[in-house]
Amino acid sequence: MPASNQPDVMDKLVSLAKRRGFIFQSSEIYGGTGSVWDYGPLGVELKKNIKDRWWHALVRMRDDVEGLDAAILMHPKVWEASGHVAGFVDPLVDCKACKGRFRADKLQDARCPRKPSKQPGEHTECQLTEPRQFNLMFKTFMGALEDSASVVYLRPETAQGIFVNFLNVQQSTRQKVPFGIAQIGKAFRNEITPGNFTFRTREFEQMEMQFFVDPNADHMEWFEYWKAQRMQWHLDLGLKEDRLHFHQHGAGELAHYARAAFDIEFDFGGTLGFQEIEGVHHRGDFDLGRHQEYSGKKLEYFDQPNNRRFVPFVIETSVGADRVTLAALANAYREEEVAGESEGRVVLGLHPAIAPIKAGIFPLVKKDGMPEFAEKLGNELRRRFPVFYDETGAIGRRYRRQDEVGTPFCLTVDGQTLEDNTVTVRDRDSLTQERVAADRVGAFLDEKLAG
Amino acid sequence: MPASNQPDVMDKLVSLAKRRGFIFQSSEIYGGTGSVWDYGPLGVELKKNIKDRWWHALVRMRDDVEGLDAAILMHPKVWEASGHVAGFVDPLVDCKACKGRFRADKLQDARCPRKPSKQPGEHTECQLTEPRQFNLMFKTFMGALEDSASVVYLRPETAQGIFVNFLNVQQSTRQKVPFGIAQIGKAFRNEITPGNFTFRTREFEQMEMQFFVDPNADHMEWFEYWKAQRMQWHLDLGLKEDRLHFHQHGAGELAHYARAAFDIEFDFGGTLGFQEIEGVHHRGDFDLGRHQEYSGKKLEYFDQPNNRRFVPFVIETSVGADRVTLAALANAYREEEVAGESEGRVVLGLHPAIAPIKAGIFPLVKKDGMPEFAEKLGNELRRRFPVFYDETGAIGRRYRRQDEVGTPFCLTVDGQTLEDNTVTVRDRDSLTQERVAADRVGAFLDEKLAG
Repeated sequence: MPASNQPDVMDKLVSLAKRRGFIFQSSEIYGGTGSVWDYGPLGVELKKNIKDRWWHALVRMRDDVEGLDAAILMHPKVWEASGHVAGFVDPLVDCKACKGRFRADKLQDARCPRKPSKQPGEHTECQLTEPRQFNLMFKTFMGALEDSASVVYLRPETAQGIFVNFLNVQQSTRQKVPFGIAQIGKAFRNEITPGNFTFRTREFEQMEMQFFVDPNADHMEWFEYWKAQRMQWHLDLGLKEDRLHFHQHGAGELAHYARAAFDIEFDFGGTLGFQEIEGVHHRGDFDLGRHQEYSGKKLEYFDQPNNRRFVPFVIETSVGADRVTLAALANAYREEEVAGESEGRVVLGLHPAIAPIKAGIFPLVKKDGMPEFAEKLGNELRRRFPVFYDETGAIGRRYRRQDEVGTPFCLTVDGQTLEDNTVTVRDRDSLTQERVAADRVGAFLDEKLAG
Repeated sequence: MPASNQPDVMDKLVSLAKRRGFIFQSSEIYGGTGSVWDYGPLGVELKKNIKDRWWHALVRMRDDVEGLDAAILMHPKVWEASGHVAGFVDPLVDCKACKGRFRADKLQDARCPRKPSKQPGEHTECQLTEPRQFNLMFKTFMGALEDSASVVYLRPETAQGIFVNFLNVQQSTRQKVPFGIAQIGKAFRNEITPGNFTFRTREFEQMEMQFFVDPNADHMEWFEYWKAQRMQWHLDLGLKEDRLHFHQHGAGELAHYARAAFDIEFDFGGTLGFQEIEGVHHRGDFDLGRHQEYSGKKLEYFDQPNNRRFVPFVIETSVGADRVTLAALANAYREEEVAGESEGRVVLGLHPAIAPIKAGIFPLVKKDGMPEFAEKLGNELRRRFPVFYDETGAIGRRYRRQDEVGTPFCLTVDGQTLEDNTVTVRDRDSLTQERVAADRVGAFLDEKLAG
């Protein structure tokens, strides 16, 4: 991957995320699990805004994409057909000396746990076992018996829920090819080396869309179309253009089912650098073909005008909701000096549409009816926007607290408010303040949050 | 439970749900799993609307409730502390003759699988084993070894994610007791006898809120407050008053941790009748106390004004998202005659706010510019409302298709539209039609969908 020009802010993000309630270590009071995270009050809103934005763009704004929410537990045959039971494996080595556990194909990136001061890749004192193939699917048992007949898996990807429902969705909606099916949901992978905060975790959420096209028609044009659409979506989310690029899978990287594959990579900064946040893959008819074979059920589309049946090709767009959320945080984080002030500030320059809180609402002082006015305004706005009322501490400190969590606007009720019914609206990024009539603030926010 | 006066519509709902894309059997092409369901294009919208409505009422409209999204996989100690490892069991009996598997405490409701024509409870030819305790938690292994040290569970309830994060949330948000934490998420129970469509499944989604109160203050008033709030929420969703009631847990029913407990039950009709869709429970300080004990970490709230530390009491409201969705469908389903027409109609009388499609948009005929006008109107409305454009078949048939999936309004572009820019708006329930200016339709829908 190319080196990053961006600073390494990951440790700062971990700290900010915990302190302000974006992301906590899961089961922290028990020492955590090391590979799973919980979203706190601000994190759940940020991630929900990103998911809702994807759903709106992919499902609600398009009449050629249908939504789906398939279950995590599926019939085990699904994973035989998909190839996961046989092939979803990483090569694993153990060290008998340091008790480390490594991916054999990533040994050069791993540090010896007994000698953490050594460089990654230095395993001179290690006694490594032969690599063994380790399946990354979590396995459990459904029903009252723990035997091979009752094994089920936690899905390692949401895509298969779409493939097995292809005809159910197509027939119930009367969609015609080309059309897509989109879903958001959890998936699980028993990663050998989770890490980098929420970047690689054992439980994560995907936003996937499978677009079904006629293999005799312009499927490569659709592939290019979706590549462009998806890159534009990330740009519209506010991710900076110079931190995004495509990475094309070379012949050696291509999955066995893929005819073409591009990753959208984001520059997380520091040593992590450019990493995949979304994949756009041309899967051909591999998945539907395998499910036909394993289930014995036809998964053909009937093209009525041409009286022809075919198994469609699939163009897939698969984005990690947690990864995009982390990218949005890394993209937004900045520390800066403020003219005329001795202390700098930390700002999350989040796109207003995904900011967890849209407006802070402050009475300048706790008297003269300002708190009452501000609370009333807050209660009106709260019906339509997440807002935060704060009357404690100096006004400058209240602004800083909102800057740090990405709140794009702060509305302050002051002495003039009680005379002319206007409030000051302070802009997070430009720091400019303008006066807006209190009964126009809702429309003002509507306009600023659009797009 | 009291007998139901409502008709049994479950089989009709299963059929409608599949045909129109609300709910499919999971992994259907492989014969299904018998206990898990997938939400199709209309189902995912219906359920999302219900979840968003809960989130809006509980989190966004209140400044005393914070959101959370904790992971499904938690540290295994969590489930020792909560009591689930030792006590989350059902008594299970097998029959050596008929190979049936039953809950020992529900034998009287079960039918012998070899003699399904017999009455429930008739097991005269059965050879039942002694009951054994069966733990309902799904178990899996995290990490590369399958041994007891790596066992983790799929959470059987979302509540514990809230308890273990109590101080993280309180401190990051600076909330003061009384306040609540709310979350929506999947939970898993390896039920011995799943059934009744999506009512009892092995994978389901909960919407839970834990409200933390001072044990020395008016905690029973808060219990009564939340009972009333939650009942009102179901009524506001459109569930009929005579199909809802409270069921108080008697002394023998109360969970070991509960000081008081009421279920909100909904009448699903037929033999299923009144069943729990939500629980409102006074859990005292059981959970936080146990997590203190098992983690060795204090989970006390510091009451600064009174310089006092205490473990709060918890009032919990826990609702099944799938059960409310099923209740909304059962509540809405009706078949009725239509004056002057030979065929009756099937209607889902869903509250407009949760209907998956808000408006059908039809050109009366496929000519004279009507399709173009209708498509343009549809594209404008789609930015803000899920709408469905349909130009195929007779207009009456198109109305019927929308009635059956609960679409509250149908907008028809006809000859007059092209003269005066108005469309007819047909009301699903009253069947009345009125003309509304095309550029006022958005505001019209806004008004009708509010509340």
